[in-house]
Amino acid sequence: MSSPNTLSIFSQTVTTVGSVGEVALIQQIQEVIGRNSPPPPEGIGDDCAVWTPPENEKVLLTVDPIIYGKHFSDKDAPELVGGKLLKRNLSDIAAMGGSPGPALLSLAMGPDLCLDWLMRFIKGLAETCEKFRVPLSGGDVAAAEMQTFVATLTQTGTALNPISRMGAELNSPIYVTGTLGGSIHGKHLRFVPRLEEGKWLASQENVLSMTDVSDGLAKDLPALLKRGRQANLDLAEIPVDPFSDGIEGAFCDGEDYELLFTLEPGTKLKDWPFAIPCHKIGHVRKSRGQGTLIDINTGKPLEFSRDGYEHFQN
Amino acid sequence: MSSPNTLSIFSQTVTTVGSVGEVALIQQIQEVIGRNSPPPPEGIGDDCAVWTPPENEKVLLTVDPIIYGKHFSDKDAPELVGGKLLKRNLSDIAAMGGSPGPALLSLAMGPDLCLDWLMRFIKGLAETCEKFRVPLSGGDVAAAEMQTFVATLTQTGTALNPISRMGAELNSPIYVTGTLGGSIHGKHLRFVPRLEEGKWLASQENVLSMTDVSDGLAKDLPALLKRGRQANLDLAEIPVDPFSDGIEGAFCDGEDYELLFTLEPGTKLKDWPFAIPCHKIGHVRKSRGQGTLIDINTGKPLEFSRDGYEHFQN
Repeated sequence: MSSPNTLSIFSQTVTTVGSVGEVALIQQIQEVIGRNSPPPPEGIGDDCAVWTPPENEKVLLTVDPIIYGKHFSDKDAPELVGGKLLKRNLSDIAAMGGSPGPALLSLAMGPDLCLDWLMRFIKGLAETCEKFRVPLSGGDVAAAEMQTFVATLTQTGTALNPISRMGAELNSPIYVTGTLGGSIHGKHLRFVPRLEEGKWLASQENVLSMTDVSDGLAKDLPALLKRGRQANLDLAEIPVDPFSDGIEGAFCDGEDYELLFTLEPGTKLKDWPFAIPCHKIGHVRKSRGQGTLIDINTGKPLEFSRDGYEHFQN
Repeated sequence: MSSPNTLSIFSQTVTTVGSVGEVALIQQIQEVIGRNSPPPPEGIGDDCAVWTPPENEKVLLTVDPIIYGKHFSDKDAPELVGGKLLKRNLSDIAAMGGSPGPALLSLAMGPDLCLDWLMRFIKGLAETCEKFRVPLSGGDVAAAEMQTFVATLTQTGTALNPISRMGAELNSPIYVTGTLGGSIHGKHLRFVPRLEEGKWLASQENVLSMTDVSDGLAKDLPALLKRGRQANLDLAEIPVDPFSDGIEGAFCDGEDYELLFTLEPGTKLKDWPFAIPCHKIGHVRKSRGQGTLIDINTGKPLEFSRDGYEHFQN
């Protein structure tokens, strides 16, 4: 795996993107991407990338950035940061039960960004593209203010039958894959997007709705519920990660990138074929007006000292 | 049209995005976008946007950002900045001869971004979506460092027969739409992407290759030529814009967003049906090793004091 980072991301002394110029920069990026971008017009090099999705499937579109100072720091290995950018988008494709199509990368970079750091970032992205068979088909590089690094990835996908967030019914059982909480101790970089699991779930007739847990169960579970519904949860069944600081971390840490889904009322998940665990954590019920997430043992709403990941706190 | 901007983009005194929180912010953005985003899962609100492209057409994908301090300043009306973000992406769809599909918006914003400025930006974007019938189907908002505004738009499109940049043959005539140069005096914000013209050109049997002039003719015309080819140009035929500072502006200013294309050798453009002009400016010839752009009257390579738009100059 990648060694911890020993480079600063920005510098005045080593070679920076500002010192090499746009044409040479794009050339170097393309060399590192290599065979992970097909020849144009399917890959990098034309005004648009051209893509022929599989017949009869619907197209899925999602976009997520990775931002210096917010999603990663100088301490993180640039290869892992590049991989994370792709994987967090693939997690959204998994959450619809889709298969990934081509991706586009848009980079806004200060001229003081270290060239070596950028090339290691691209290498990690390209290796992750290879692993998940995602063609990196296009993108853009643009100069931004000093000390800025915003990488935005657009991920396409396809699905015969995309599973939306909405669709849970009264009395639907609620399930979640894997374990929750403590992602800051490494999982936020090293997680595996649940693509296989998502596709399998989309092929099951009794799966009604699905999302990925990116902001924490406390924020993502209410987003599955229609107005007038609540989730009754058995806290003993919540799969708390060993790295989580207790049950609050499992609800509020975010960046779990696990799948959260609901089934047809009165049905069960049959023959779960994967190594990672999958837990039934509760049921959708009619709201009693006390709150959205209810502890079935006390009958009271769950309360946490924080609210799931909030992007704009000052 | 929009009045000039009287708001600062960043502030410590008026209401900022950092003071309203993510949930309220997304809600306000969605209100301004209104009917320009369809209900989920086709529009904003699910893990991915779901799209069904027209049968038998190829999908086009492009991405371009707009960055504070690089592509616009405090002086520009935020509505025009929002419109420009969409239009520069639509120009890439036009350059392939495509029709626009849904778009995704990703915003990386400092917490000190003025809420009013952002809402006027979104309003301009939404009105431009309406004008060009582009559904704004998804996106993301993320916090960035203070004084940062990077808006990245992904534009999809479709075409039966996408026209690539490559394909010009020896002796192909070279054409360009509209006028070139001086875009900084207003055209860089107020241009109209040549979607209708691009579609019509893609339907003509003798159009071999096409691109849009975004970085200036000096940079975009060589990109149409294979190795070992040069462009012989009749400078008297270059459509210099009245706002351009002479012929050098027409080659080097960039942000013209006009279409540059080549035809089957020995053929002409027949019955150009549009109000904007379209000029034959030269021919593709075998390279004599002197340069890529040659003035036919002197037989010498064109030389300019600058090189077309270069994104990473320090």
